[in-house]
Amino acid sequence: MAAAAFTDPQEAEQAFYDAFRRADLDAMMAVWAQDEEVFCVHPGGSRLSSLEAIRESFSQIFAAGPTMRFDIRAAQTLRGGLIAVHSVYEYISILGEGRPPTAVVATNVYANVGGGWRMVAHHGSLAGEQEAPVQAQPVPPPGLLH
Amino acid sequence: MAAAAFTDPQEAEQAFYDAFRRADLDAMMAVWAQDEEVFCVHPGGSRLSSLEAIRESFSQIFAAGPTMRFDIRAAQTLRGGLIAVHSVYEYISILGEGRPPTAVVATNVYANVGGGWRMVAHHGSLAGEQEAPVQAQPVPPPGLLH
Repeated sequence: MAAAAFTDPQEAEQAFYDAFRRADLDAMMAVWAQDEEVFCVHPGGSRLSSLEAIRESFSQIFAAGPTMRFDIRAAQTLRGGLIAVHSVYEYISILGEGRPPTAVVATNVYANVGGGWRMVAHHGSLAGEQEAPVQAQPVPPPGLLH
Repeated sequence: MAAAAFTDPQEAEQAFYDAFRRADLDAMMAVWAQDEEVFCVHPGGSRLSSLEAIRESFSQIFAAGPTMRFDIRAAQTLRGGLIAVHSVYEYISILGEGRPPTAVVATNVYANVGGGWRMVAHHGSLAGEQEAPVQAQPVPPPGLLH
């Protein structure tokens, strides 16, 4: 939890999905700002408005272990000083299941807090299947970000 | 469409829900920034990434006329310079229907563009019914905002 903040919003986002893939609860919570104003909405869920509630939700999601795979696509960003808003499509697959990926559209908000960037909000919802994302902008592989 | 921008994010949000209530397409689009980076996700839908697609979606939503009533509650805000992020619960009722309101959780993003504030992103999703919002902060009536 005492990890350094991230140098830019993209690095924080990379860490968010890396923690998701690894089902690493401490790494996940290290991405979040230690702020009272954070919030998190999982697909189909209500808003979680405290770090404790967010931690508990990820603890439940990660209980099955590192079984989720994320293909992040079609990133779109808004940046205004100390806050950055990223919209991405998450194509989520579960290891060992042969089903096609589930498409989730996510709004991820990062803030520059204490000299570095952390997540302050995540809102995910199941995307309708009738439309594909118009703007496909593949996220560069991790090696290009460091 | 040439209306002045709003003096703060709360005023833009008020105009957004007023336009929704009145099913007024021009008023709705006047709330949005004339920016290529805007996006909009309606509950259960995919991401709309152009003003044209957003306008078309509201045209369809408003086709039935001013039948939607919004009770906006539990606002939570993040502010960082030129961008403000509001999370609200929308309790939506349809006039003439006796059903209980539908709960939508929405992330609304506003940007300071050209000296005033406009909406740059809206992400709504159906909220799970198992949990009520923890922080109930009723939005003041419109008269207090002007």
